[in-house]
Amino acid sequence: MPLHIALVHFPTVNKAGDAVCTSVTNLDMHDLSRAATTYGVEGIWIVHPYEPQQRFLARVLRHWRDGWGAAYNPTRKEALARLEQVASLDDVVSRMSADSQARPLLVGTSARPAPNRISYGDLRHRLESNPDEPVLLVFGTGWGLHPDLLVDLDIMLDPIKGPGDWNHLSVRAAVGIILDRLRGSDRG
Amino acid sequence: MPLHIALVHFPTVNKAGDAVCTSVTNLDMHDLSRAATTYGVEGIWIVHPYEPQQRFLARVLRHWRDGWGAAYNPTRKEALARLEQVASLDDVVSRMSADSQARPLLVGTSARPAPNRISYGDLRHRLESNPDEPVLLVFGTGWGLHPDLLVDLDIMLDPIKGPGDWNHLSVRAAVGIILDRLRGSDRG
Repeated sequence: MPLHIALVHFPTVNKAGDAVCTSVTNLDMHDLSRAATTYGVEGIWIVHPYEPQQRFLARVLRHWRDGWGAAYNPTRKEALARLEQVASLDDVVSRMSADSQARPLLVGTSARPAPNRISYGDLRHRLESNPDEPVLLVFGTGWGLHPDLLVDLDIMLDPIKGPGDWNHLSVRAAVGIILDRLRGSDRG
Repeated sequence: MPLHIALVHFPTVNKAGDAVCTSVTNLDMHDLSRAATTYGVEGIWIVHPYEPQQRFLARVLRHWRDGWGAAYNPTRKEALARLEQVASLDDVVSRMSADSQARPLLVGTSARPAPNRISYGDLRHRLESNPDEPVLLVFGTGWGLHPDLLVDLDIMLDPIKGPGDWNHLSVRAAVGIILDRLRGSDRG
């Protein structure tokens, strides 16, 4: 079941809608990897074009994969084993396409409704009925994915909804909730 | 619908099962408040007995509620408005009991199965059919809630499950997933 997730730091938007590049966040690596491992996600891609930020990420990864952290907390080592860092979303698509001989379906996420949408039930059904189709869920940091990137995506997942209209979730919670809706067991 | 959540820093256990007191984590305040506001949770209780940690938490709260952060990001101000800090779980129970004239149902959470369990469907049904019953979901930090605290709880929620057995989620993801299972709309 080749389901992957990407966390995009550029191009994203800030509060004013300007294109920005956000900083990597240590807890995102852990939380996304742990949720991904819980829900059988094969790859976690951290997308950041800026080399010093990539070096920071690599240093944190070394601690948990090979350094003191690997012996102290083997479950974190296991979760982070499937995390990769790349410079752009195009790089993720190239790597996934080379691995599976097919371009992945690019599914965007947003707290705002988009025109070209798929429901959780429909995507869950598609994942279950096409277990060999590579699918990439794309998450934005900051105030969300930039329109220049959105046009490259195939479809958008419905926004997450609670009982009301307020839905300003952290990306760490949103990734967990979305994976649970697509892959969770005993949810009832 | 008086649903509340508590994040307990003491008594919790470390990897070896010893009783420990964990540090507060800035992102927990934001992520839990944002998930709670999305899912109509009335109160978020940060449980920490250590006064310097309470002062740190109060300082961060002031920034987002009354300081520069309140104008910069009003949605964070709104989410954090329902966060309270207390020294113990007993304090939460006293405060909730005084507010609603009834002792809340204390529902624990754990990644490990407990003897006295309730499913997500059953708790969701109970929340919907008894909208006036105060309910407190109790989350642990570190390696989970200490047995001395577990004995005071009324019932435990089932562990979260994905397709496999690995379920080492962050508390930030677990709170989001559990609230979505209990209160989410359009999950299908």
